[in-house]
Amino acid sequence: MNSDSDSKKGYLWAKSRMPILNRIVRKYSKSKILSDFKLGMCLHITYETAVLVTALSRAGAMISLCPANPLSSKDHVIDYLHSEVANVKLFVNNREDYSSFYKNMDRVLDTKPQIITDDGGELHKKAILRSQNVVGGTEETTSGVNRLRMLSKDGKLTYPIIAANESIMKLLLDNKFGTGQSTIQGIINTTGVMVANKRIVVCGYGWVGKGVARVAKGMGAKVTIAEVDPLLAIEAYLDGFEVGPLEKLLANNDIFITCTGQFNVIGRDHFHKLKEGAILCNAGHFDVEIDVNYLNEMDPSHFDPRPNVTCYHTNRSQCKKKFYLITRGRVVNLVGAEGNSPEVMDISFSNQFLAIVYLSKAASKMTNRVYRMPKKLDKKLAQLVLAEHGVEIDSLTPDQISYFKR
Amino acid sequence: MNSDSDSKKGYLWAKSRMPILNRIVRKYSKSKILSDFKLGMCLHITYETAVLVTALSRAGAMISLCPANPLSSKDHVIDYLHSEVANVKLFVNNREDYSSFYKNMDRVLDTKPQIITDDGGELHKKAILRSQNVVGGTEETTSGVNRLRMLSKDGKLTYPIIAANESIMKLLLDNKFGTGQSTIQGIINTTGVMVANKRIVVCGYGWVGKGVARVAKGMGAKVTIAEVDPLLAIEAYLDGFEVGPLEKLLANNDIFITCTGQFNVIGRDHFHKLKEGAILCNAGHFDVEIDVNYLNEMDPSHFDPRPNVTCYHTNRSQCKKKFYLITRGRVVNLVGAEGNSPEVMDISFSNQFLAIVYLSKAASKMTNRVYRMPKKLDKKLAQLVLAEHGVEIDSLTPDQISYFKR
Amino acid sequence: MNSDSDSKKGYLWAKSRMPILNRIVRKYSKSKILSDFKLGMCLHITYETAVLVTALSRAGAMISLCPANPLSSKDHVIDYLHSEVANVKLFVNNREDYSSFYKNMDRVLDTKPQIITDDGGELHKKAILRSQNVVGGTEETTSGVNRLRMLSKDGKLTYPIIAANESIMKLLLDNKFGTGQSTIQGIINTTGVMVANKRIVVCGYGWVGKGVARVAKGMGAKVTIAEVDPLLAIEAYLDGFEVGPLEKLLANNDIFITCTGQFNVIGRDHFHKLKEGAILCNAGHFDVEIDVNYLNEMDPSHFDPRPNVTCYHTNRSQCKKKFYLITRGRVVNLVGAEGNSPEVMDISFSNQFLAIVYLSKAASKMTNRVYRMPKKLDKKLAQLVLAEHGVEIDSLTPDQISYFKR
Amino acid sequence: MNSDSDSKKGYLWAKSRMPILNRIVRKYSKSKILSDFKLGMCLHITYETAVLVTALSRAGAMISLCPANPLSSKDHVIDYLHSEVANVKLFVNNREDYSSFYKNMDRVLDTKPQIITDDGGELHKKAILRSQNVVGGTEETTSGVNRLRMLSKDGKLTYPIIAANESIMKLLLDNKFGTGQSTIQGIINTTGVMVANKRIVVCGYGWVGKGVARVAKGMGAKVTIAEVDPLLAIEAYLDGFEVGPLEKLLANNDIFITCTGQFNVIGRDHFHKLKEGAILCNAGHFDVEIDVNYLNEMDPSHFDPRPNVTCYHTNRSQCKKKFYLITRGRVVNLVGAEGNSPEVMDISFSNQFLAIVYLSKAASKMTNRVYRMPKKLDKKLAQLVLAEHGVEIDSLTPDQISYFKR
Repeated sequence: MNSDSDSKKGYLWAKSRMPILNRIVRKYSKSKILSDFKLGMCLHITYETAVLVTALSRAGAMISLCPANPLSSKDHVIDYLHSEVANVKLFVNNREDYSSFYKNMDRVLDTKPQIITDDGGELHKKAILRSQNVVGGTEETTSGVNRLRMLSKDGKLTYPIIAANESIMKLLLDNKFGTGQSTIQGIINTTGVMVANKRIVVCGYGWVGKGVARVAKGMGAKVTIAEVDPLLAIEAYLDGFEVGPLEKLLANNDIFITCTGQFNVIGRDHFHKLKEGAILCNAGHFDVEIDVNYLNEMDPSHFDPRPNVTCYHTNRSQCKKKFYLITRGRVVNLVGAEGNSPEVMDISFSNQFLAIVYLSKAASKMTNRVYRMPKKLDKKLAQLVLAEHGVEIDSLTPDQISYFKR
Repeated sequence: MNSDSDSKKGYLWAKSRMPILNRIVRKYSKSKILSDFKLGMCLHITYETAVLVTALSRAGAMISLCPANPLSSKDHVIDYLHSEVANVKLFVNNREDYSSFYKNMDRVLDTKPQIITDDGGELHKKAILRSQNVVGGTEETTSGVNRLRMLSKDGKLTYPIIAANESIMKLLLDNKFGTGQSTIQGIINTTGVMVANKRIVVCGYGWVGKGVARVAKGMGAKVTIAEVDPLLAIEAYLDGFEVGPLEKLLANNDIFITCTGQFNVIGRDHFHKLKEGAILCNAGHFDVEIDVNYLNEMDPSHFDPRPNVTCYHTNRSQCKKKFYLITRGRVVNLVGAEGNSPEVMDISFSNQFLAIVYLSKAASKMTNRVYRMPKKLDKKLAQLVLAEHGVEIDSLTPDQISYFKR
Repeated sequence: MNSDSDSKKGYLWAKSRMPILNRIVRKYSKSKILSDFKLGMCLHITYETAVLVTALSRAGAMISLCPANPLSSKDHVIDYLHSEVANVKLFVNNREDYSSFYKNMDRVLDTKPQIITDDGGELHKKAILRSQNVVGGTEETTSGVNRLRMLSKDGKLTYPIIAANESIMKLLLDNKFGTGQSTIQGIINTTGVMVANKRIVVCGYGWVGKGVARVAKGMGAKVTIAEVDPLLAIEAYLDGFEVGPLEKLLANNDIFITCTGQFNVIGRDHFHKLKEGAILCNAGHFDVEIDVNYLNEMDPSHFDPRPNVTCYHTNRSQCKKKFYLITRGRVVNLVGAEGNSPEVMDISFSNQFLAIVYLSKAASKMTNRVYRMPKKLDKKLAQLVLAEHGVEIDSLTPDQISYFKR
Repeated sequence: MNSDSDSKKGYLWAKSRMPILNRIVRKYSKSKILSDFKLGMCLHITYETAVLVTALSRAGAMISLCPANPLSSKDHVIDYLHSEVANVKLFVNNREDYSSFYKNMDRVLDTKPQIITDDGGELHKKAILRSQNVVGGTEETTSGVNRLRMLSKDGKLTYPIIAANESIMKLLLDNKFGTGQSTIQGIINTTGVMVANKRIVVCGYGWVGKGVARVAKGMGAKVTIAEVDPLLAIEAYLDGFEVGPLEKLLANNDIFITCTGQFNVIGRDHFHKLKEGAILCNAGHFDVEIDVNYLNEMDPSHFDPRPNVTCYHTNRSQCKKKFYLITRGRVVNLVGAEGNSPEVMDISFSNQFLAIVYLSKAASKMTNRVYRMPKKLDKKLAQLVLAEHGVEIDSLTPDQISYFKR
């Protein structure tokens, strides 16, 4: 089997696990709704991105694409995009460095895209700096959105931007259920633990914490939530979890998972109180939730008994205990498991597709600021997911619509 | 045992089941935080109200109280309040009629209360009409709040009002867990069904629907949600429930519970498609969610095989089936069970207490509109509930507080 | 509405909630499978019993019936049986005393029944003493079965007896799910507590304990199991419950439920360690699991703040706490709620019906001992319940049947 | 890092995840309870086996060990055992073939072991053929036990054998919770699916099926059980699962998992009725539950879109659908995930250790047949697991012990 058919296989697998985007493209490709629209895109060059780009192309768009990270492009995907997809100009170097990386962004902008889709905000920043004539943009990541909100505050945005992923659908399917599953998966894959007989502490009861706690409990673990917000703490308590201060949970729990967005959640005052053999990991975006720097200082002779598992010993002579850190405190679902599966990217990229179509029609009536995903599109995506699962719902009768207005 | 000690027993039982309000009063009674404050209150005259009034009195307040409904006063409670609580003027007639009912409101207002607490909005309306000099008010019910919002829109409010019960704590503890339990309780008490082997349809996945669905599932039922909002439908689906259109659920489900706030949710087109022996009930505030008028027309010879259970037969000759309506479509947790237990009223009245204390300090800086329960008070109540259950939570370190600001 | 139609209504309601027995009778009434068989029955005279007796009559049997307890007969049911059911001789006095009670048993035996169905074992004992010529018998209760096993050991049984309720179906539907629900129901009905925010200790993780724990957890409670058998303790632990010794659970749990079959499970050493306001109740058959005698000695001035709730104070001067006992330690689901619903009796009496039919054919090949419910009948009942719920299952292919034999 | 320290690391990791066996050895190593006892063992040469062998050695035993499978020995483990463990004679060839494999068994028997521990029954058969003088034996696998039961029936056993793994502890921790987790893990690892939004059919509701269904549901899936036994079907139904005949589940479920012990559970009549994109896998021991032979005939051009995932197309021209088979129908938790983790082997090998100690004392009083794990040992293991998790339980008072005897 040659490499061509391999790349085709990779694409087809991803496509087969992205049913919602398939539904959307089936709907919009007939009308060529994006006919002759020029899109500039800066995304990780993965098979899921190939599915998105192919979908947009089938809806009539002309696409210029460059990578969102100099290292994240996959060669097979590049091959596939070069050989198979019409209307796509791919600006990527086989051995990308930072210089070629930024040049590729410029080359995308040189094609004068009307709508810009970005993952990280770099392409948007360049477009704004170049005073490029752009109708609207979408942004995929939270950190990109934060940057753009800053620019918006300072009145520097030159076109409206939709934060494509700030939606109920994304929070439910990605943050809660997607990350909930892949975090536990990462823990099992790296350590081989049985979940059912473990005591697990989840730090943070936001969307990710809720998801992680739910999956862990669903697999039989006894889960305790550590929180700083009393309303989230009460919610956790009524959802059936124990709630307690981290300090008092250290000595009798087996696994600790940080999902807070904070830093030093598990820090220097905690480690020596841990139960012998405890396992620590982080499900948050940044690797600052567990104080790894301190750990490495504390025990310079730490070692890895298994790949992605580091064993530390506390340095108090009177009480020398060992415990384990997974994936060096980096986000465990990405490093220890596959991270976002095609099914989750299906939601993210369906969001992108709907946002692009929306901008192609409505951008002229929007102002130059960052928009959350419009509620209407959030509901539309919900409807598509329901349809994919064969789930029908009710609708209000005209009488009922007026009842609410009384 | 004489009637006096009976009323004392009733009061003590309610008080013993209202630990949060007890905590609050322990805190505020020393400082007499409401010292010499005059309160005008219009509430149902129940033991729980007696606990609230006693608490306010112990915090130093002078209280005038009249009933919120001509029929809801309980004689034992009146006796208790007359004999036992200092600083309370009780304006209530043993055989209240509408005329005496409104007169009692006037007598409360004649005492020139500085803060008015109402259940339904009648006392507020009177106070506004009388151009009474009032510092601020609180309102207990949704329907009262709606009325007051209307007045606020028209610029007619003459003092700020806190919608005491629009809080996360109330939604979680009353709407979701309180009503969830008491609705299922009402169904069991009236019909004696086993829940574990039933198929149950919950119409509406708002807070009440979520609570009812959760309890039913927790007791073993197979629960399907009927919804009109695709985002709530997706949430239900991911929460593990089946979701479907009511129409297709009629024939193979055993119990139907409406929790929508809508009218005619189960109506004339549905009844003859029901499964033989199906049970219908309503957990919504108004008795319009099931079209009872049509039912009574359809089968004039309906009868009650058990108290609070009405048996109807469909009138299609080719397919004559019977089904049951509980509590004539009126809210099943109040009519078929005890409704709000002291523990739930504990949350509502703690809300009231905190709102009154808040108004006593902050009203002068507020404008004449309806406020939601301030987030700070919502969190404070959460903290009190956590403390009651012996649950400690974490707090951010100074470094962590600045981390979020970066 | 006169009393006649009332008794008819009560019968019809019970019948409508006993679908399995209805299915059985539909099947057997055509063939009159019990044609001219004479049955002697000693059962509680309830509507559910009326449904059983009517079913047997429709299958062709001639029935003589007397009450299983001098006090348990309901007048309406007697009226109903007298007026409506063919082939039934009812031997019951309106004001039964122990003398008439035993005489009525003799009158049943005087009719020379071929099969005897008993609830308690009294009728069987009489039949054996009288050297009555009986083909076989069934027994409804555990205590009756125990007595008969004793007789069997001593070689004194004169006919084979089926312990009709010793079956998986009964254990699942009655002990686990039926009692699980009605026990929690009894607690809510008597005390009005919210379950979702409670810590509950279930003593004993047998069938009843499993059911009670499951329902309590399903309604949101945090449940801890106290056990003496390490294998049941491990099962509870892996089922997601906390497990601990009662001693250490007393101070921080809200509700204690005994389901052990033991005596003095909560006894004199425990009461003064309870949490202030704790609630105690018993789900076991006998009222010995909580040491009520000691309680009444300890606090002679105990009183009932609510019906079925008794308040006790500990008598240690340094630490005077109150706690509550429900239904005086008697089985809470019967005294505080309705106990066995028609749906549960449907299983018990379907067991009886199938056992009687079985005896009518097979008794001659059986020896004079106590039999458990034959597995084949247990499976048949399971199939009927599945059919009632519209549930189909698979069957083995002939190839698969031989595969197992390889 | 050299290979020596690598093998040491592998051993230490396994040991650190086998706390129960560590507890046992701590207890028995002081008394050298197996002092000078000669053990002959035939086991897979894994790190977990190294932990068992080391434990037995520390308890005083002299061990001869050979591999249970010519291919399953891991070189690092061999190195470790050679260099680190006293009192162990290891009979294994670096490149084992069947001839050397059987010779190694003979060499083990040549050491005249008093107790024989086997995994598969081969060593027992040889020992019996050689009329070896053996005190007793233990057997690890079901298939070995079945063989030995056959020999026992024919009166050919020459020493008593304990089926070490036929215990509640093994069924709970390995079959139910261990396999439940690792089966779902295998599915996620090979396919990357999100479980929460899937419809999953579990064929078979034995211990493994119960575990798989529980974990799948716990992660949010909608689970339906296909069963042939009506009592297991009812149990599944009351446990909250849907139950249905496989035939009717094919078209609208996403994932099918066989856990039956049967063959051709999903066979030629089923495949073309599957939902497009369905995923099939097997959690049973043998790869016969899904008819893979037919599949390969049906679609000779099947291919693997991902490792361990095979894509088949149905061959009906009018309805050409694709679906996926995981790990070619072989047991998905072993092939697609790590299978039995050290924590599960901890239970199995603790069973072995306790059985060996038991035999060392009691064998002389036992007869030459296959024994289930004695209840007393099952309970002892349960107590050790409870202790490991810091769980205390109650014990009966002397009065209570006599109460049961009344």
